Amino acid sequence: MRQPEYVRTVQAFARRELIGQERLLDSLADAPLPLYGRFAETGLANWWLPKEHGGLGLNLEESVRIVSELAYGDAGAAFMLFIPVLTTSMVGWYASEQLRKRYLSTMVEQNGSCATLGSEHEAGSELARITTTVRRDGNFLVLNGHKAYSTNADFGQFLVVLARVEGSTSEFLAVLVPRDTPGITVDKRWEMIGLRSSGTYQVSLADCRVPADNALAGNGLRLLEVGLNASRILIATTGLGIARRIRDLCMEYAKTKSVKGAPLAGNAVFAAKLGQFEMLIGVMTNQCLTAAREYDAIAARPDAGEEFLRVGTLKSALTTKMFCGQSGWQIASTASEMFGGFGYTHEAVIGKLMRDMRYVSIVEGGDDVLRDLVFSRYVVPVSKRS
Amino acid sequence: MRQPEYVRTVQAFARRELIGQERLLDSLADAPLPLYGRFAETGLANWWLPKEHGGLGLNLEESVRIVSELAYGDAGAAFMLFIPVLTTSMVGWYASEQLRKRYLSTMVEQNGSCATLGSEHEAGSELARITTTVRRDGNFLVLNGHKAYSTNADFGQFLVVLARVEGSTSEFLAVLVPRDTPGITVDKRWEMIGLRSSGTYQVSLADCRVPADNALAGNGLRLLEVGLNASRILIATTGLGIARRIRDLCMEYAKTKSVKGAPLAGNAVFAAKLGQFEMLIGVMTNQCLTAAREYDAIAARPDAGEEFLRVGTLKSALTTKMFCGQSGWQIASTASEMFGGFGYTHEAVIGKLMRDMRYVSIVEGGDDVLRDLVFSRYVVPVSKRS
Amino acid sequence: MRQPEYVRTVQAFARRELIGQERLLDSLADAPLPLYGRFAETGLANWWLPKEHGGLGLNLEESVRIVSELAYGDAGAAFMLFIPVLTTSMVGWYASEQLRKRYLSTMVEQNGSCATLGSEHEAGSELARITTTVRRDGNFLVLNGHKAYSTNADFGQFLVVLARVEGSTSEFLAVLVPRDTPGITVDKRWEMIGLRSSGTYQVSLADCRVPADNALAGNGLRLLEVGLNASRILIATTGLGIARRIRDLCMEYAKTKSVKGAPLAGNAVFAAKLGQFEMLIGVMTNQCLTAAREYDAIAARPDAGEEFLRVGTLKSALTTKMFCGQSGWQIASTASEMFGGFGYTHEAVIGKLMRDMRYVSIVEGGDDVLRDLVFSRYVVPVSKRS
Amino acid sequence: MRQPEYVRTVQAFARRELIGQERLLDSLADAPLPLYGRFAETGLANWWLPKEHGGLGLNLEESVRIVSELAYGDAGAAFMLFIPVLTTSMVGWYASEQLRKRYLSTMVEQNGSCATLGSEHEAGSELARITTTVRRDGNFLVLNGHKAYSTNADFGQFLVVLARVEGSTSEFLAVLVPRDTPGITVDKRWEMIGLRSSGTYQVSLADCRVPADNALAGNGLRLLEVGLNASRILIATTGLGIARRIRDLCMEYAKTKSVKGAPLAGNAVFAAKLGQFEMLIGVMTNQCLTAAREYDAIAARPDAGEEFLRVGTLKSALTTKMFCGQSGWQIASTASEMFGGFGYTHEAVIGKLMRDMRYVSIVEGGDDVLRDLVFSRYVVPVSKRS
Repeated sequence: MRQPEYVRTVQAFARRELIGQERLLDSLADAPLPLYGRFAETGLANWWLPKEHGGLGLNLEESVRIVSELAYGDAGAAFMLFIPVLTTSMVGWYASEQLRKRYLSTMVEQNGSCATLGSEHEAGSELARITTTVRRDGNFLVLNGHKAYSTNADFGQFLVVLARVEGSTSEFLAVLVPRDTPGITVDKRWEMIGLRSSGTYQVSLADCRVPADNALAGNGLRLLEVGLNASRILIATTGLGIARRIRDLCMEYAKTKSVKGAPLAGNAVFAAKLGQFEMLIGVMTNQCLTAAREYDAIAARPDAGEEFLRVGTLKSALTTKMFCGQSGWQIASTASEMFGGFGYTHEAVIGKLMRDMRYVSIVEGGDDVLRDLVFSRYVVPVSKRS
Repeated sequence: MRQPEYVRTVQAFARRELIGQERLLDSLADAPLPLYGRFAETGLANWWLPKEHGGLGLNLEESVRIVSELAYGDAGAAFMLFIPVLTTSMVGWYASEQLRKRYLSTMVEQNGSCATLGSEHEAGSELARITTTVRRDGNFLVLNGHKAYSTNADFGQFLVVLARVEGSTSEFLAVLVPRDTPGITVDKRWEMIGLRSSGTYQVSLADCRVPADNALAGNGLRLLEVGLNASRILIATTGLGIARRIRDLCMEYAKTKSVKGAPLAGNAVFAAKLGQFEMLIGVMTNQCLTAAREYDAIAARPDAGEEFLRVGTLKSALTTKMFCGQSGWQIASTASEMFGGFGYTHEAVIGKLMRDMRYVSIVEGGDDVLRDLVFSRYVVPVSKRS
Repeated sequence: MRQPEYVRTVQAFARRELIGQERLLDSLADAPLPLYGRFAETGLANWWLPKEHGGLGLNLEESVRIVSELAYGDAGAAFMLFIPVLTTSMVGWYASEQLRKRYLSTMVEQNGSCATLGSEHEAGSELARITTTVRRDGNFLVLNGHKAYSTNADFGQFLVVLARVEGSTSEFLAVLVPRDTPGITVDKRWEMIGLRSSGTYQVSLADCRVPADNALAGNGLRLLEVGLNASRILIATTGLGIARRIRDLCMEYAKTKSVKGAPLAGNAVFAAKLGQFEMLIGVMTNQCLTAAREYDAIAARPDAGEEFLRVGTLKSALTTKMFCGQSGWQIASTASEMFGGFGYTHEAVIGKLMRDMRYVSIVEGGDDVLRDLVFSRYVVPVSKRS
Repeated sequence: MRQPEYVRTVQAFARRELIGQERLLDSLADAPLPLYGRFAETGLANWWLPKEHGGLGLNLEESVRIVSELAYGDAGAAFMLFIPVLTTSMVGWYASEQLRKRYLSTMVEQNGSCATLGSEHEAGSELARITTTVRRDGNFLVLNGHKAYSTNADFGQFLVVLARVEGSTSEFLAVLVPRDTPGITVDKRWEMIGLRSSGTYQVSLADCRVPADNALAGNGLRLLEVGLNASRILIATTGLGIARRIRDLCMEYAKTKSVKGAPLAGNAVFAAKLGQFEMLIGVMTNQCLTAAREYDAIAARPDAGEEFLRVGTLKSALTTKMFCGQSGWQIASTASEMFGGFGYTHEAVIGKLMRDMRYVSIVEGGDDVLRDLVFSRYVVPVSKRS
């Protein structure tokens, strides 16, 4: 089946810029920006941004196809390139028209980026415990706090910051803060285990002052839940892309390797492992696409913002990330034993792929957190069970 | 979301005839026929038979919804009721118009059944090794041999028999044999571990004589591969139905049970298990529906029979059965430890559900066989990989 | 290495009375007693009873060797034959000399049996919640209550009953009650999923009156913890015996079966599964023996009773049962897919072995309970970690 | 229970030199030698070398206790420090008295090291396919070839090289080659994924000439099998040490972290994971010790060399490495999800521990190879089954 053109463009980009560059991509080299620029040259930068703001307006199903190919090449690059969707979907549905116009259109024009500042050291998965505050000061909002992990925060054009309303225990805002606002400090870049071609930062906010209507409409925590739907499905999709790469790597290796005098590719144990991989990859593919279509069905509604607020965390976003993280880890674990001693060196790619895969089950909610969410929201209410 | 009427009909049937009747259904009682008759009263017997023969013509996606509900009630009943699809799909696409008209229309009128005689003792998964023969004798075909496992064979109106052409090593026919043909003997009913409300038989054929054009068009083994697509997807679906039932059983139990002075339903370990179950159930659901839609897309083509011959075994039919069998077994294994000593008695239903679940990974190809098939057909050819 | 004579005796018994009798053993036939008598003819009945009471005085390491062979033949028979050790070890260490003499010597002389009445419907793993009571009435104790699962209770000569001291919430006694005491009713025999050659009963006590010094010395719950050490290690050992049987069954089957024109025994996937089984079986063997030796080291001390009271639940008793249950289930799950359709019938033995295996992870504490115990007693206290 | 003094010495070394130095140890810094020297200061360097050559003569059971503590600190350091046992045990049993005296005594005196050159690129696990050759030239042996992975080869005082006898397909020698023999080139140090404080090298041999009686007595491949017994058991033991460290790391973390307003250490899901870890750790401990004792029983015989030649690969050496690798990986996989986003950075130690753990299932035979060996040597011959 012939792939759509945007998919072929991404495949070509991956072959040209990512595959075979693993050493460089894994080196924690200074900046992801050159890569970012070269992706922009394909015309696909921020491919999901709405047409009304000049973007391509590709939907989440199409995004799944793109991210699977990007992550086949390099999961860090994929992550860096799609993760702004978390931020822009909150802005797209819950910012004032003026803000949307200004920031999303600029982002399209400049092939820019943006970031969300959510998690804090003491509040990884439990955002109700964040200590960053926002207070009203005349027509302005003033933000203060420390944010632990924010990808792209160093070079994005704007940030969306989750903050507790000063003096309240239950009121939270999501506030759009231009990146050049005085008071924003990037404390450090995290040296991550995998995804090392992306940049994740610790950021401080000291008396950052923005106009009051930079606050998005609605409870900040709920808006973040909505934003996480798309990014969780795409994080799951990186697991799919990595898994496909691992499978192909094993098949390449099997051509060169013999066992008991016969080619590895003809060995029954090898075949059984690859058959199992392919099964899991097939199911991961269907699951990512199905979840994306469900998301797109809501996103296409005229009242998408309200409907998303109503449903909050989509069940399929949770289960897709859980499933792809678990299946991907199974594949990576098995494959990491298949290359013998060579596979335990950095001359083999499998080590990097294993480290990259690990993030799927960790970021934006570990499985313990997600299992608990699935239970309380989708098993306890009888009508929501599958 | 309101379910379609046919689903509600099946749910009502399951509540009325299956749920709560586990003892009886599990007893290997004499005949599945009364149950069969009561299902026919719903008007849904053989729901997939084509409209042109007077049937309801429900497609495989609709069949998935039906089978999930039937298997929620009792997997044996579900199996007995849907397994004729294996036989009728071969007849529907590859029998002469006259045969189709005669046998499928009659089946609709009489709410009848039928069976396929494929596997033999020495040729479980490798049908090229079958020893049942067919030879031409004027305008007749004469069949001889022993068939190991055939569900519904005792009471179906016709059989489709896989046989090797006498004297050939590579030529096979699928021959429609009316059940009342002299020479057919049901040697025994198998006492199965699970699915005990269904009937699976060992059958002998001694000089069974049928008109020559009772042979279906095409290589018998390939026709069987085509027929197995629908039945494998529905076998996977029984795994889904059983899994949903297990989940609900656990939730019911949790209401009545306390751990360390608190209700089990509030226990974090219990919640984690149920969250994991629901994740798997969600993925199983999507996988069954996706595979069915892929099947339906081919089945809706005017050249469906030719196209199915071309593709043979659908990848998704293999992977869906593998996945649901494996996930279902995970769920059944975990759940079988959750009811304490009571769960180890026949007063609890979990033991039956575990035994029923086991069949998903066994019938119509164990995972070892399927992994090998997926590897050789869908991993080795690069273009067929997911 | 030549096995000791008592092991060869048991192997011969298993070959003669158990192996090949699976249908009968699995039939829930009326009474285990004939089998019991035939085992007594070997001279090994209640092999662990102390020499001072006329017994053979075999230790737990020797018991592991015996039980592995018995369970190789039939796990239900093994269970029925060794489970009195739970009762007699409590009596041996904590009953008055007079009681010990009377009941243990009689048990030796008559090749008798006995049973513990511990768990109740609302108090499976949390015995502090039992509602059976004992009250003092002059020089007598009077017991009342309902006990859920007690193996051998129907035909043992005496019972040890766990009961709460009436009016207290934290005081418990373990009381020796002769089986013929008025007021004891066997309500029913449980129809169990596996171990069907053994008998487990629900028992009621109505104003059962025994002399006051029939109470064992010490807190009843703690005494039970001590008693469970030996029985948990032997339950784990049944898992080992069943696993060894499964391995041999697979090897037998592989001789008769071919895959792709070659014998199954030469198939690489089959070899990999059996190699993994053997690894697990080797580790299970070492673990059972190591745990038993640790137990024997305490049991051989002059102050064994006191020392056991001090340590309570041995870590190795918990971990051995957990490990053998989990590994055994892995083996049984894998093997249950290896016999094709035939393995899903009662003509194959694998179904019975799988059901028998299941109990290892359920009786005398499911894994959830045991994991929690291991955590609180052996991980939280830093000095007790391995 | 008070630990023996040598264990306490090692624990103190680990606390002083390893724990807390993860960054440095993981840096692939230039040479392992300083660390090596500091370990020598404890007096325990090469602790297993025989007393007759001036060594401490600690046995394998004692070695297990030492290696578990070293690997608790750093698996790379442990590996570097114990792996000479592979070489010295071949020399100790199969070299001439003169060679033993010269090389083992010198090694004791100088706290030296040594290495085995076995595996080659095309012959990872199948050493019968090695292409390094040895030929006789008068009273000398001349070696040529390329060896892929040899730990410590750069700085050891002597090497034992596996080579095929030139012109033969089935004759192999193990030849002791002094490290300063002309013709030895260290091509490169491998950049390994884990164990980065150790050094593994690719080495070439070009016309290396040694006296003819530097050949050890016996078939070289068989001698290597014998040597691998000790090293495989100690590799398994590093898995145990890493697992113990992971457990303690989780417990430390749990003190600082809260979930839903309660300390993580009190969370039931956390407790269940740690209880499972402790169970596995307990079984790993017993398995390593049991395997070591079995080895020691042979090693203590006067005819140890002959007996080891007779048995070749000990079953327990294979199964212990398989088991500890698999269980260790389970623990590392689970734990790597327990530290949230922080655990995905190099500021957490868990990433290093996971990478270190991976090697257990890879070096000296992956599980596929070992499963196959266990099957053919210990399952097929009925009398060798457990």
